[in-house]
Amino acid sequence: MLIAYSVEDIHRLVGEGRVEGTAVKPVSSIAALSKAKPGDLAFLGNLKYKADVPGCRASVILVPEDYDGHPTEGQAFIRLPKPSHALARICREVERMLWPKPEPGIHPSAVVQPDAQVDATAHVGPLCVVEAGAQVGPGAVLQAQVYLGRGSRVGQDSWLMPQVTVMEYCVIGRRVRLLSGVVIGGDGFGYDTNSQGVHEKVPQIGRVIIEDDVELGANVTVDRARFNETRVGEGTKVDNLTQIAHNVVIGKNCLVAALVGLSGSTTLEDSVIIGGQAGLAGHIRIGKGSQIGGQSGVIHDLPPESRVRDSPSMPYLVAQKVHILKSRLPELFKRVATLEETAAQLGAAEATPPRRKKGE
Amino acid sequence: MLIAYSVEDIHRLVGEGRVEGTAVKPVSSIAALSKAKPGDLAFLGNLKYKADVPGCRASVILVPEDYDGHPTEGQAFIRLPKPSHALARICREVERMLWPKPEPGIHPSAVVQPDAQVDATAHVGPLCVVEAGAQVGPGAVLQAQVYLGRGSRVGQDSWLMPQVTVMEYCVIGRRVRLLSGVVIGGDGFGYDTNSQGVHEKVPQIGRVIIEDDVELGANVTVDRARFNETRVGEGTKVDNLTQIAHNVVIGKNCLVAALVGLSGSTTLEDSVIIGGQAGLAGHIRIGKGSQIGGQSGVIHDLPPESRVRDSPSMPYLVAQKVHILKSRLPELFKRVATLEETAAQLGAAEATPPRRKKGE
Amino acid sequence: MLIAYSVEDIHRLVGEGRVEGTAVKPVSSIAALSKAKPGDLAFLGNLKYKADVPGCRASVILVPEDYDGHPTEGQAFIRLPKPSHALARICREVERMLWPKPEPGIHPSAVVQPDAQVDATAHVGPLCVVEAGAQVGPGAVLQAQVYLGRGSRVGQDSWLMPQVTVMEYCVIGRRVRLLSGVVIGGDGFGYDTNSQGVHEKVPQIGRVIIEDDVELGANVTVDRARFNETRVGEGTKVDNLTQIAHNVVIGKNCLVAALVGLSGSTTLEDSVIIGGQAGLAGHIRIGKGSQIGGQSGVIHDLPPESRVRDSPSMPYLVAQKVHILKSRLPELFKRVATLEETAAQLGAAEATPPRRKKGE
Repeated sequence: MLIAYSVEDIHRLVGEGRVEGTAVKPVSSIAALSKAKPGDLAFLGNLKYKADVPGCRASVILVPEDYDGHPTEGQAFIRLPKPSHALARICREVERMLWPKPEPGIHPSAVVQPDAQVDATAHVGPLCVVEAGAQVGPGAVLQAQVYLGRGSRVGQDSWLMPQVTVMEYCVIGRRVRLLSGVVIGGDGFGYDTNSQGVHEKVPQIGRVIIEDDVELGANVTVDRARFNETRVGEGTKVDNLTQIAHNVVIGKNCLVAALVGLSGSTTLEDSVIIGGQAGLAGHIRIGKGSQIGGQSGVIHDLPPESRVRDSPSMPYLVAQKVHILKSRLPELFKRVATLEETAAQLGAAEATPPRRKKGE
Repeated sequence: MLIAYSVEDIHRLVGEGRVEGTAVKPVSSIAALSKAKPGDLAFLGNLKYKADVPGCRASVILVPEDYDGHPTEGQAFIRLPKPSHALARICREVERMLWPKPEPGIHPSAVVQPDAQVDATAHVGPLCVVEAGAQVGPGAVLQAQVYLGRGSRVGQDSWLMPQVTVMEYCVIGRRVRLLSGVVIGGDGFGYDTNSQGVHEKVPQIGRVIIEDDVELGANVTVDRARFNETRVGEGTKVDNLTQIAHNVVIGKNCLVAALVGLSGSTTLEDSVIIGGQAGLAGHIRIGKGSQIGGQSGVIHDLPPESRVRDSPSMPYLVAQKVHILKSRLPELFKRVATLEETAAQLGAAEATPPRRKKGE
Repeated sequence: MLIAYSVEDIHRLVGEGRVEGTAVKPVSSIAALSKAKPGDLAFLGNLKYKADVPGCRASVILVPEDYDGHPTEGQAFIRLPKPSHALARICREVERMLWPKPEPGIHPSAVVQPDAQVDATAHVGPLCVVEAGAQVGPGAVLQAQVYLGRGSRVGQDSWLMPQVTVMEYCVIGRRVRLLSGVVIGGDGFGYDTNSQGVHEKVPQIGRVIIEDDVELGANVTVDRARFNETRVGEGTKVDNLTQIAHNVVIGKNCLVAALVGLSGSTTLEDSVIIGGQAGLAGHIRIGKGSQIGGQSGVIHDLPPESRVRDSPSMPYLVAQKVHILKSRLPELFKRVATLEETAAQLGAAEATPPRRKKGE
């Protein structure tokens, strides 16, 4: 946190509860009960960790109102109706202090074309480039070394971290967060292969639309559409190093983990969750509320509320069985070999009754 | 598209065909017949979509010369020998209008070392860095915030998008397109581990050569060679977030999809196609014209024209069978268990004839 | 190499051995014995390549002292106790010449906040941004277009390549190398989903600590912790495009290949090796010295010295058997079907003895 809070600061910040004891050391970090040291804030959010409180060395501990222990020497408790809510409030406050919104204005080192429109309340940081016809909305932040291409728009209160690239004619909604290294609007990967085996570029003349409240992780890439648009829906969050190809349409409130590949023209309906390193083929549709496990490979449409895993993907419960059985394949091969021997003996026995009978 | 075309503009652009009807609205986007709205251009490229034309709401539709329907009120047709060729011509024109080549010259905010050689017809955009001894060829474009390292060369008419990094002593051919976030010439990943388990860096003193007409997607990384060179062959296209390790040699006209990993010293011969998220081990050779499915893991050489999938990779047809059978493993285990019971009964029967015979 | 060395230069550089013959051409590259051309340096490091020496066209060849052949016309040998050690010395020298440390000082185009502390022996290159309270240690290099966020520190002799981003309050140790496009300290991927299915951001108020002698490849991302810290341990090396999530703790001297995903709060103990495109679930611990194969998916803790592969991961030897048997599944299904037929016939036979007996 890098900021020191007294127990009184924290009490004020939380806005409720009752302080018990005196913290000798100001608090400058947050830690789990079992790992906290003096100078840390800890909290009893889940009663199953209750036994960790008496030995906890944190300077301040947030506990439920009715917690029955007491602080040690030099330690303070804050007794609260909901310690986890109080913690969330503290974290948001710390976040605001550590990342205050930069002052409005255009840094003198930024290169902003005369006909770009930067709102008076927006911040364009050092060494940014804002091209002709681009628009930066009220309260928006281009932190540093950001590239905003010709005719692109950044909506109200969006925040583009250092070294984000938004290519030409793309639209970034409101309250969007683009982490460093994000590339919006690179050309889609489209070629026609001619009779000599040469790949001729198919023009990619569409754009990218990032709706409100989206967050894209570091080094995520979102390609511009061939025609029309590639779209990331409202409230969707995407983790680092994920690839979103041309003409992909992502619905609202999806969660896409890191290193995922979404191929061209694929659609995610709302509230889809995709685990890390999963890959989706092109031109498929994933139904609302579906969940796709990490490292899955999905090559067909999925109905709403699907649960799949594996590559190629299978229903989750099948995949779980298959994974267990797969590791038992050596055993199965042996069992089949044994059966074959048995069958050979039995078959031989069966094939010879006349002779055996004869011998009887 | 962000540009409005009248039907006459489009007719002129296409350079052939015959207009029928009058488009009330100028055209500013391209859409499928079934999805088009007024203001869109649609096209009947494949006759199987013929039934979508009568209900299509596009302002302008490109149709084959002999198409037997007629435009609705406020709609225009352009009758053409090959609507898809006309569409390609329109797209290329739109592309040229949306991405006109920047004017020659060095932006005053760029930092260009005195002994760098920038051709008079090249463009070095805002906040680029061009280091000592670097060369920028005729008509080449460094769009903005590009880094071109000491002694590196960019060939004629190549285009480096914003925030591309080309490290020292690398060679970029002609008509190459490097999308934003590409890193050329980072150190290869090479260490000698000493007896204390410490990884000592092996110097990476080779370079990277990108041949003519290559396109590398956003955030692609191509490492410099240990000695000699890492090479991407003429006409090869690589999609976003792919890793090309040191001393990899890629042939001509390959297609490599997103998030692929090519390990050190591996060779792709010409016209190899690799699906997304596939990984290739180091020091292997992939024969000409081979196709490697998405998410495959290839650990051995492949002969020319191979078709493989899965990790570790198998011939495509085997993999397809195995994937189906894998999901039937639970059934197979049950069948084998049943057989074992049967065998036990039969075997018991077979083993006891004397006693059964006795009892008879 | 781009630098020409005479055989005398090389002899001086190696500092030992004996020259035999005269190289007509100066040396400007290093190549394998079988591929070398005039102007190349080659070396006989492993005696199994001895047969390649007589036909080798290199201008200079490093050979063992007692090698029994002789140089051809215009070629020189340097006879040495250990040719591979001599080669390493040459490579390190070439590296120093090709990448001399930049002169101390702050480039006038860099934007350095007044209260940032840049050591007098450090180099801050063109178009870098160094924010308030940031510290750049003795001999450290920010090569060009680097972003160093508020309150972050870069230790002695570390080297940040062009277009690296270090966000706020992060700590980079000594002799660390961050390749281009690395993003340190982006927000961790953490959300609480409310009853309306909206993902509310969980503040990420921790930091990232990169210990001494770490190297991170191009476009690697390391997220800041929710609380406390994400940590990459001393001497660990990470290849390109790898994702290190919030609160991950990596031990000392690990090797992590390209495109790997390490999920939140996972711990690697010391000397762990991870192959390319492997993925680790969150909140797991990988024991010291473990090795995880490429494309593996690890979802449970692993004890020290584990060797695993596959997704989900299995012990290496099991995985190897399973991979072979998996490709034999079509055969196994046929064998089981045959057994079932046999069993049916045998069972039928067995089921009918009374009748058969009757008929006897």
